[in-house]
Amino acid sequence: MVTDALLIARAAWSRLVEPGDAVAGALVAALGPQEALDWLRGHEPLPGLAAADGRARAALGAAAQRWRTRLPDLDAARDLGMLERVGGRLLVPEAPGWPRGLEVLGSSAPMCLWVRGSLAGEALGAALRRSVALVGARACTGYGEHVTAEIAAGVAARGWCVVSGGAYGIDAVAHRAALAGDGTTVAFLAGGVDRLYPAGNTELLRAVADAGALVSEVPPGSVPAKVRFLQRNRLIAAVSGATVVVEAAWRSGALSTARHAASLLRPVGAVPGPVTSASSAGCHRLLRDGVAVCVCDTAEVLELVEPVPAPEPRTDPRAGDGLDLVLRRTLDALPLRRPAPEGSVARTAGLSEREVRASLGRLELAGLAVRDAHGWRRANPDRSR
Amino acid sequence: MVTDALLIARAAWSRLVEPGDAVAGALVAALGPQEALDWLRGHEPLPGLAAADGRARAALGAAAQRWRTRLPDLDAARDLGMLERVGGRLLVPEAPGWPRGLEVLGSSAPMCLWVRGSLAGEALGAALRRSVALVGARACTGYGEHVTAEIAAGVAARGWCVVSGGAYGIDAVAHRAALAGDGTTVAFLAGGVDRLYPAGNTELLRAVADAGALVSEVPPGSVPAKVRFLQRNRLIAAVSGATVVVEAAWRSGALSTARHAASLLRPVGAVPGPVTSASSAGCHRLLRDGVAVCVCDTAEVLELVEPVPAPEPRTDPRAGDGLDLVLRRTLDALPLRRPAPEGSVARTAGLSEREVRASLGRLELAGLAVRDAHGWRRANPDRSR
Repeated sequence: MVTDALLIARAAWSRLVEPGDAVAGALVAALGPQEALDWLRGHEPLPGLAAADGRARAALGAAAQRWRTRLPDLDAARDLGMLERVGGRLLVPEAPGWPRGLEVLGSSAPMCLWVRGSLAGEALGAALRRSVALVGARACTGYGEHVTAEIAAGVAARGWCVVSGGAYGIDAVAHRAALAGDGTTVAFLAGGVDRLYPAGNTELLRAVADAGALVSEVPPGSVPAKVRFLQRNRLIAAVSGATVVVEAAWRSGALSTARHAASLLRPVGAVPGPVTSASSAGCHRLLRDGVAVCVCDTAEVLELVEPVPAPEPRTDPRAGDGLDLVLRRTLDALPLRRPAPEGSVARTAGLSEREVRASLGRLELAGLAVRDAHGWRRANPDRSR
Repeated sequence: MVTDALLIARAAWSRLVEPGDAVAGALVAALGPQEALDWLRGHEPLPGLAAADGRARAALGAAAQRWRTRLPDLDAARDLGMLERVGGRLLVPEAPGWPRGLEVLGSSAPMCLWVRGSLAGEALGAALRRSVALVGARACTGYGEHVTAEIAAGVAARGWCVVSGGAYGIDAVAHRAALAGDGTTVAFLAGGVDRLYPAGNTELLRAVADAGALVSEVPPGSVPAKVRFLQRNRLIAAVSGATVVVEAAWRSGALSTARHAASLLRPVGAVPGPVTSASSAGCHRLLRDGVAVCVCDTAEVLELVEPVPAPEPRTDPRAGDGLDLVLRRTLDALPLRRPAPEGSVARTAGLSEREVRASLGRLELAGLAVRDAHGWRRANPDRSR
């Protein structure tokens, strides 16, 4: 049962701690959010902690000192009020719709998710269960934009939710292409969902909220500090069925998302690009390091999340395909214009006359060889050399 | 000891069989080239073959029928004379300089190599021991040409021999760039070394012969039939320390070279390109299938053959790199302009005042934080967001 007290306690914890605080996560899991908060406020000795070893006691003591610096300013009801004013709702692990993917984070999982948009609760959880993260450089190229738009549109058209980080560049193109195709898209933000950051993406983020959702693990009013970007990246990696880096420089935040995803054993894809482009160097690095699989289009991206038995052929089969070696050599030995007798074909092919005779019969049946009074020749000019 | 009789016998076998004939290879290995030839000519029952099982007898019988179709025209002395006239020499497995890489082919190894050029015997063997194959599409793009030229020049400048197939496109650019840098280069041809095929590369192949070598396993006068290209590819894969595909369409002969190399457990590299370019689809296919490692420049190509312990950093480290999380969070919490007191920094960072105090001291020492009467601020604007 999700009570208001539970919502307030979890909202409070998300204000007190920085994202990814595993000590807080373990404490809240052990005591429950409200009880853990009561303990933090009360300065009581923790029940059972006397039995714990010295290191655990020291870690908890140091952590509690950190959390207590923010107790004086704490006002979870005010934070929840700010969320309500932007039309948002708090999603907690105890509620249906909590993204299953976050379970893999264990004690480092978020205390709650501050969700703003039309997609909330169970609908959000369902969308994220069929989601692909498309991430990449803010400073992207026209090539990166083009490929991102193609893949995001394709993924969305196949009913998959496009997850990204709401940033300039690849993120923005991914959200925009999903929206353009009436698809579902969710932006995970490093700051509060009341701040549409970066400012240049205000309109886009508003549109993402209208059609999908903005999600953050830090309360409204929180600034998108740099460490929060790194922690936000782990959320994107955890909630998405697969993470794909479309374009990224040698050093790019997108690589941290990819490495998070790989460490969580989630499929990771990287789109290659020209080796002469610095904006693809990070993708090539992921491919080289074996962190990512090479993906070139929507179909290959979706193979990461729903593997298919056999890829479709890309080109029409050519004449002579699938022939065994003896047939192949016989076919190669056939003159294009002036017919040659069987013995001559055998010598050219380095085959016995008996082998050549049998092969020519099969090639004739296949429409690849033609016989006349003077011997054998090819049925039609070969296109492939 | 390499006698004239041995050279003639091996030359004869290379005329009688098609490349990769493992039955012939096994027979020649068992009896010796001359004795095997005597047997083929004499129609005598093979010593010990009565003891062999029925399938082996049948396979040898069928193979002998194939080989015998070419016995009437056989004239190994004439073939060797043709080689001499173009300044070539026959290299046999019994001679020093026989490429060690070919041993991996076992019974399918060539009977001999017809070598034309300034690089012969032991010098050829030594060059191939330090070689990289650069192969790719005939129909290459400007991008492919550019990257091939860069890598071939770089590889040659580091004293490595550039091996390729003498074809149009990537092959030609690889040979040309190696020659331009006074490097060593060897072309493995699918036809006889007397035929400078394709015709448009005549001048280039002559230059390759002048500075390096043209090599084939089929005798002079042999046409470059299609199956011979596939067998030639296995030679390139076997003799080279690594095989790199620079640009190749979804279906390209270069992929067969890469797959040969992989099956021989030789390192394989593929250069990525734009996913919008059909000429890179084969490279991406190799990356996706895990056949090839992603390589972007000369250094990464040479890592395939001489692994290095650690890659060089590509960019200057940024301010804040390598800081632990507490320092990182403290640094993030520092205002850029108006100084803030320690308590405020602690609240922003979500750290205890004690942690923040220690961190600020370390950041000040590192030149990242500045203190004045009003508190702390960052030492200089951060460039990285």
